[in-house]
Order: sequence, then C-alpha cells, then structure tokens
Amino acid sequence: MHARIHNFNAGPAALPLPVLEEIKDSFLNFKESGMSITEVSHRSKWFDDVINDAIERTKRLLKLNDRYKVLFIQGGASMQFCMAPLNFLSDGRSADYINTGTWSAKAIKEAEIQNKPIKVAASSEDKNFCYIPENIPFNKDAVYVHLTSNNTIKGTQFESLPDTGHIPMVIDMSSDIMSRPVDMGDIGMIYAGAQKNIGPAGVCMVIIRQDLLDLVPDNIPSMLSYATFANKNSMFNTPPCFSIYTIALVLKWLEETIGGLEKMDMLNRKKASLLYDFIDNSDFYNATAEKGSRSLMNVTFRLPAAGLEKSFVEKAIDNGLGGLKGHRSVGGCRASIYNATGIDAINDLVSFMKLFEKNAG
Amino acid sequence: MHARIHNFNAGPAALPLPVLEEIKDSFLNFKESGMSITEVSHRSKWFDDVINDAIERTKRLLKLNDRYKVLFIQGGASMQFCMAPLNFLSDGRSADYINTGTWSAKAIKEAEIQNKPIKVAASSEDKNFCYIPENIPFNKDAVYVHLTSNNTIKGTQFESLPDTGHIPMVIDMSSDIMSRPVDMGDIGMIYAGAQKNIGPAGVCMVIIRQDLLDLVPDNIPSMLSYATFANKNSMFNTPPCFSIYTIALVLKWLEETIGGLEKMDMLNRKKASLLYDFIDNSDFYNATAEKGSRSLMNVTFRLPAAGLEKSFVEKAIDNGLGGLKGHRSVGGCRASIYNATGIDAINDLVSFMKLFEKNAG
Repeated sequence: MHARIHNFNAGPAALPLPVLEEIKDSFLNFKESGMSITEVSHRSKWFDDVINDAIERTKRLLKLNDRYKVLFIQGGASMQFCMAPLNFLSDGRSADYINTGTWSAKAIKEAEIQNKPIKVAASSEDKNFCYIPENIPFNKDAVYVHLTSNNTIKGTQFESLPDTGHIPMVIDMSSDIMSRPVDMGDIGMIYAGAQKNIGPAGVCMVIIRQDLLDLVPDNIPSMLSYATFANKNSMFNTPPCFSIYTIALVLKWLEETIGGLEKMDMLNRKKASLLYDFIDNSDFYNATAEKGSRSLMNVTFRLPAAGLEKSFVEKAIDNGLGGLKGHRSVGGCRASIYNATGIDAINDLVSFMKLFEKNAG
Repeated sequence: MHARIHNFNAGPAALPLPVLEEIKDSFLNFKESGMSITEVSHRSKWFDDVINDAIERTKRLLKLNDRYKVLFIQGGASMQFCMAPLNFLSDGRSADYINTGTWSAKAIKEAEIQNKPIKVAASSEDKNFCYIPENIPFNKDAVYVHLTSNNTIKGTQFESLPDTGHIPMVIDMSSDIMSRPVDMGDIGMIYAGAQKNIGPAGVCMVIIRQDLLDLVPDNIPSMLSYATFANKNSMFNTPPCFSIYTIALVLKWLEETIGGLEKMDMLNRKKASLLYDFIDNSDFYNATAEKGSRSLMNVTFRLPAAGLEKSFVEKAIDNGLGGLKGHRSVGGCRASIYNATGIDAINDLVSFMKLFEKNAG
C-alpha cells in the first residue's frame, strides 16, 4: 500500500505535504506553549498571532486595499448562500445571480427561501452548465451580482470576471481562491469554503469591502451578521482555531515556497494544459466543459461507457490515484487539481490514463 | 520550558494526551487511506465510519433512546442561541429561559433579536449569578425551557435539572457535556460547543428529540434548519471533519479508557472536592460560587487583592500551570478542570496554591 497517494478529491482535498508535516511535528506542543494548537485559548497571544498571520498573508497575496476585511466564518459556503442576501438585501432591494450550476443554484434557492427579490440575470442551464455565460444584461438597480467563479461539479470557470458596470460582485470562490491573481476592482465580497484550496473543512474565508459592511442591518442574529465578525476580528465566539491555523500554514507555503499567486497561476495552467491536451488528443476520453469555459481546478471528463468509468476509478485507486470519481449528481470522472496537487501527480495520472486506454482497447 | 503544561483553560481546553498522540501518529496517513484525515472526502467510507462512530458512542454514553438524533453543526453554542428559537417558535408561541449568567443572557438576547416572545422564568442576577435558582414557576404554555447547565464564567452548575412538568428542556451543556450521566427524561435538546469537554473548537454537538424536530418549519434557510442536519446525517454540506474525528477519539477514550460517564463523574467529583476543600479551608483563597451551586468543571476563586491574582496567574505559568486567569468580564481566578484534566494536575495546583499563599504571607 502506498504511504501517500496522489489525491484528486474535490474537497476536502490535498494539502501541501510540508504543511501537514509541520502540523504533525508541533501537534503536542505548539510554539513552546506546552499545549496542542487544539488546546490553546483563542484569547491568547499564540492564537492572535495565528489568525492575524492568516489575515495579513491573505491581504498580501490578493493585494487587498484597506477597504477590505478578512473574516473567518463557520458553516461553509452554504452558510454564505444564506448570509449574503440576509445582510445586503434588508431594505427590499434586489440582487442579480448568475446560474452556472449546482452551487449557484443553491445560492439562488437560499435567497428565495428568505423571500428576497433576486433575479437570475444569466444561466447556462440550457446546455447542462457546460459553459460560462457572456455579455450578461445586469439590472442597474441590483445591490450586488452573485456568481460562482469556478464550478467544482460541472468543471467550468470564469476565465475573467464579467463587467458589471461597477455593481459590486459577491463571488463564491470556494474552489479557485488563491489559485490565481484576482482583479479586486468591482469585487464587493469573496467567500470560500477552505476545504479545496486553502485548508481543511470547517471554516469559510470571507473577504468583504466596507461599502457592503455598511449595508448590514442591526436586527439580525449576531452569528449571521458580517458586522459581528468584522467588529470582533472573527472572535465574537470561539473560532474554528485548527482550521484557521492550517490556512495560515497553507498561505505561508503559497507565499514562501511557491512564491505568490502569479507563480501559482503559471503552475496551475501548466498542470491543467497537460491534462486537457492529453484528453483533447484522445478519442477515448472526452472533456465535458466547453473550451473557453474550462476549469483549471476541476477537469471533468467521460469515458466511452459508464462501466469503463467505474473500472477506471477503481484501477486508479489501485495505482495510488484517488478521488477521480465524478460528483454523484453528474457521474463521469473528475480530476481536481488544486494548488497542492503537484505536476508529478498530473504526469502519473496521464501515464495511467494512457495505459488504461490501451488495456481497454 | 515544560514540554507539556497542566492546562486549566476554559475552552479551547485540555484534550486527553492519548487522543492527541493518535491524531499525531496517523496525521499523514489516516487508516491506510494514503491521505491525512484533513484530506479525506466526507463522502468516503473512511469519514462515514468516523461520524457514525462519534454518533454511536454518544448514544451509548448518554443512553439515548431512538427518539434522539445526534447532529454536528458549525458556529458553536452561539449559533444555537439563534437556531433554537428560529426552529421551535415559528408559530408565535413562547419559551421560558433561565438566566444564570453570561451565556444564558446571550441566548435570551438572540431570541429577542428575532422578536420571539420568550419569558425569563428565573434569574440569579440579583446576586451576580453566584447561585442556581430553584423552585422556578414555569409557564405552562412554554414550547421549551432553556437553561445553561454549567456556567463557565460564573462557576456555577445545576446539581440536578429542574422539574419542568414535562415541558421539554433545551440545554446548553457546552461546558459539562459528558462529564456525568444525564437523565434524559424531559430533555428535548442538548447542545454543546465541543471545545471544552469533547473536542477542539469548530463544531457543536446537538442532540435533538423527534418531537422538537417535528416543530421545524420548511421556510427557513437550509443551514439554519435542524431538519437539514437530521435528514442528511449532518452532511448536507461539508462538515467540520477534523473536529468530528477528534470528538470520536475523545468519546472512545471516555468509553474505553475511563469506562463511561459514571466513572468520569466519580473522577470529576474527586477532582473538584480536592480543590474546593482546599479553598474552603483557606483564609487566603475564596470561592465565588455558593455551596450547592458550585460547578464541578470551572472552579472560580478570588485572592485578597487583584494585584495578588495577577502575580498568582503569572507565577502559575512559570510553574507549568496554565489558563488560571478568570474570564475578562469578571476577573479573579478560575481553574477549568474538564474531563481531560487529571487528578495529578489538581494535586500540582493545590501544592502551588499552598506555596503561593505561604510566600505571599
């Protein structure tokens, strides 16, 4: 049995090995505190340093100006589907949503369940979400435009952000945050469940601009208010300390080992090209997303038959390649190749795909 | 510097050393998966086994019948302050709250902010929350009675649960869950932030009875509905995997090393007696909670002067005794002696307290 496999899981997903090793090595005695990071008080200097390090690294990596605050909130992106309309649409005004698949649709549903008057400004449902809509006619009175920058399940990604005419964008970046530089120009808020590109499950990073914070009403429950988290540096109550600690280590690795988001982007493009080029040159494998809309993070593909796909996934595991099964809602295969997945993993995957095709022929 | 200190933190707090060692040892390769527990998919057999193990152990330890479901929800007890009234008071009916200090008061506030017509049936605010109210006149039409079984900050604890005349109790047990057996008779729901007695921060255990689940309305956001978590075995979205995994290990330690809640209760009583007896026999240290209302988990005490308290806390740290500072809202000193704090820690604390008194005299 392989000690460590190549992990192509969609999330929770691979983490950088040096990060895991550092957690392991200091697990019984964090920074000479005599305690595990899981035992240290969140009101201590030790944890203050951890959370502030995660915040400062986020600001540097994304080149955030002082109008943005970095928050850590529990409940994953799904909680943000609820919180964004609750916080920003308290006065009866509307927001635009772009529907590019499963997660966008869930965001829309959670706004509608609160009777918020949102509008779906564009959708790619007509072609089973295999592309990203363009030239979208936004409503000028929208408080924000919501979109999912990368669609984990459908394998599509916005190559560049849409022009909203300065309406603030609220972006679910769960599966591509920190994978490339971002032009923050018209971005009002980014949120990202950590468990794909920046850490373990159990925390959602929220980057919010002051003009959106100013919209938050007073009369909502404390734990559902962005103002609570902004005013208390995400420590109104006990935060998910271990998850935030791991994020800080992943961001340190991004800055100091990888060298920042430009470098990460180059690596990610190289990884995705290797895989898409191989698939495009094959008659056996078929990519499901349209060119121009393809995700650099989640490469979705089909084999000629469902039986072959099942056998492909099983044999891959035997060869130390895990997590290649497509999402249960769409079937097929999917290789999630987030930041922590190295080029060696892609090379091994392509070699295996060649061999599998040959043996199936 | 001590490799490991005696940790008297109020939460996050001490975890059993064998649990920390098991996490450390398997951190790079969980159950021969070739992945860290932080990298394993929540939709995998590996994680299913983890969450179901945590649930089954909870059911055995608390002797739950089939009417109860065990859920894991993010956001800590503070999120439960919001969710309980939202889920159970949708039809305009009322609930009774007992106010025994900071956390009870916060629970009341989060119900009131939602305009739920709750009533404070009893309060110990008249004596700075140093006692637990008795003979409480509950309102017969209350949907539930809310109480905080142990008051981490004030150092008080319900010695036994009040007689509500079969109105279901909703109990915040964050700081004494699994510290002693519980008569589930009239308990409709228990919730507990994990970071005191059962795990790391980042997850709240919720034990809910079917009749309360039946009250949950359809038209609330998915992540705020107990029904969502009950119907999806707490995996509507990605759960806080690492925190749940640690809970499973702590409960295993409770069952297999300690021997269950009766044994744990005996140990906890012995630990608390050692400390309270020493304090009661001293003219230098003064316990702040009234006899009969004293917490077995959080022993709060004062020294003759604030300056001495500051010096006490500092010298204690130098002697490998951490976390003895009282909550910032009340001052003084506090020794949190949860399940994972051994009797050796209490003995060392008492020895230090004797020495400190002698040197201060």
